[in-house]
Amino acid sequence: MRATLIYGAGDIRVEDVPDPILKETTDAVVRVTTACVCGSDLHPYGSMKPEDGPARIGHEFIGVVEDIGSDVTSVEKGDLVVAPFAWSDGTCDFCREGLQTACEHGGFWARDGIDGGQGEAVRVPFADGTLVKLPVEETSPLIPSLLTLSDVYGTGWHAAVKGGVTERTTVTVIGDGAVGLLAVLSARQLGAEQIILMGRHESRTELGRVFGATDVVAERGDEGIAKVRELTGGQGSHVVLEAVGHLPAYQQAYGVVRPGGTISRVGAPQYEQAPIGFGSLFGGNITLTGGPAPARAYVETLMPAILDGTIDPGRVFDRTVGLEDVAEGYRAMAAREALKVLVRP
Amino acid sequence: MRATLIYGAGDIRVEDVPDPILKETTDAVVRVTTACVCGSDLHPYGSMKPEDGPARIGHEFIGVVEDIGSDVTSVEKGDLVVAPFAWSDGTCDFCREGLQTACEHGGFWARDGIDGGQGEAVRVPFADGTLVKLPVEETSPLIPSLLTLSDVYGTGWHAAVKGGVTERTTVTVIGDGAVGLLAVLSARQLGAEQIILMGRHESRTELGRVFGATDVVAERGDEGIAKVRELTGGQGSHVVLEAVGHLPAYQQAYGVVRPGGTISRVGAPQYEQAPIGFGSLFGGNITLTGGPAPARAYVETLMPAILDGTIDPGRVFDRTVGLEDVAEGYRAMAAREALKVLVRP
Repeated sequence: MRATLIYGAGDIRVEDVPDPILKETTDAVVRVTTACVCGSDLHPYGSMKPEDGPARIGHEFIGVVEDIGSDVTSVEKGDLVVAPFAWSDGTCDFCREGLQTACEHGGFWARDGIDGGQGEAVRVPFADGTLVKLPVEETSPLIPSLLTLSDVYGTGWHAAVKGGVTERTTVTVIGDGAVGLLAVLSARQLGAEQIILMGRHESRTELGRVFGATDVVAERGDEGIAKVRELTGGQGSHVVLEAVGHLPAYQQAYGVVRPGGTISRVGAPQYEQAPIGFGSLFGGNITLTGGPAPARAYVETLMPAILDGTIDPGRVFDRTVGLEDVAEGYRAMAAREALKVLVRP
Repeated sequence: MRATLIYGAGDIRVEDVPDPILKETTDAVVRVTTACVCGSDLHPYGSMKPEDGPARIGHEFIGVVEDIGSDVTSVEKGDLVVAPFAWSDGTCDFCREGLQTACEHGGFWARDGIDGGQGEAVRVPFADGTLVKLPVEETSPLIPSLLTLSDVYGTGWHAAVKGGVTERTTVTVIGDGAVGLLAVLSARQLGAEQIILMGRHESRTELGRVFGATDVVAERGDEGIAKVRELTGGQGSHVVLEAVGHLPAYQQAYGVVRPGGTISRVGAPQYEQAPIGFGSLFGGNITLTGGPAPARAYVETLMPAILDGTIDPGRVFDRTVGLEDVAEGYRAMAAREALKVLVRP
């Protein structure tokens, strides 16, 4: 089959790789019908050293079950399914608690010999724990929205849930990428009445307004912080959803958060050391939370509003490419010409 | 009157200072009957430069109201009162929400011209917001326990509350100082059934067992982390209460916390930069919380169990000195000969 490999920064290729086959009785093989490129794929696309490649890539997909192991009971051949960005056994303590990204036997796509999502097919470990059947046809116009359940919508939702967003909290979202915009949507669904979106790309912040942002702050750094404080009566924002992952975004987060408030990070941090002492988090009793979203845990919660048309998170996709053209999708996203790119194998 | 001043590291003196008088109509003047030395006083005692002194010191006291301003309504002359370690107006948004350490008009004792607690008397700003009347005589044997409401008990309680301790959480407490031991007591009061105390001083960890610790881990670093993981079925502790404030204690905290768990810090951090990226907090969806405890918010909640004899947090005091001998109290605490020193002016 054909699948995407990354050979290093800026070097995406589609090549022949072995067809996936069942290895364990709990596996399924899924033929990918729709995949996409994630903002987090842009990190290796921006900086990966050639000596660390080539490597498979991609972690969001919808597809049709082609084969199942003898112990798989929740999906069958022909089912259309969505896969979250982490695979998980569904039975360990962490899975049962809804933290599938900490599954004791799970892992992530495109690592450790597991297929990536940007290819024609995928061997899915722990199919019962990982896959969720979709009640639509593979040609449904809802597919882009349902694909966001794989990662970006679940991740935005995770940010809002971990941040404790309610109808009584003001919310500031840092970052106007797909996750930031869907964090806005999630905050709105959880009832927040003031949602400030910090972002500089007008076409994106406009979509943020559609999703529920009440204010947009284009300024960054001290100027942006002052603007958010002004919008929140001088006190700062109860909850800050940080959907970028770079240090300046974190610094902006503790600059705009209200004493006693919460910073919820879902942008994978591209730093390890950061300020957390008296002058940043401690003095104001700020809570810092977040991490890799257990997207699997949220699929059943978030799907109904997509199916009934209440929301349309798939609007984050603004370009579609075929699998052979996936490199162009990366280029367009990295150049910020596209917000999020759908891939049709 | 006589009051304690710190002239620099290791240099504590008791000197004549001006008697406090009412300055605002919301002030009270309190004659201090019992004060104490805090673990956090040992930070300047260990490192303060002479050019930053002399400065008043002390932030925990019980006393008798000697005078009140014309707008004070909640206490009157002759009342025995306890003061939390921060003074606060009691009326701003943050005070009404129970985060008095973020009071918009409040502050801390012994700073910015405000008296310290280790002296014969104190001018108390915002007496209505700050002071709580005690329903006992100044000679009551409950005084040491009631004095812990000023700081160390409220701070241990804050750690446990912010950490989300319940009967379903395992808890690890890092630090066997007064705050750590009272974090143990607080975790027990909140229903935790497994409470692991990390500390090396046997007389202190013994008191920790009295307060509710089920396990004591004397080892530090990787060895201590391995021990806690072993005690928690390999998964780590749902909640970690960090009551030290030095970087190794924080590193220990993320070493022992369970994925999805919470680190609650109340030891004033003696560092600003620390690891919070994928390898420490983010990867495991760890929440970091805590800060200066709003001790004022907890006085009414915590007092009844002291008054009815259910608990005896005052057991953290193991030495008493007169005001003129307060320097000896500092020396004994810094040398770890005393756990916590009561001061009787």
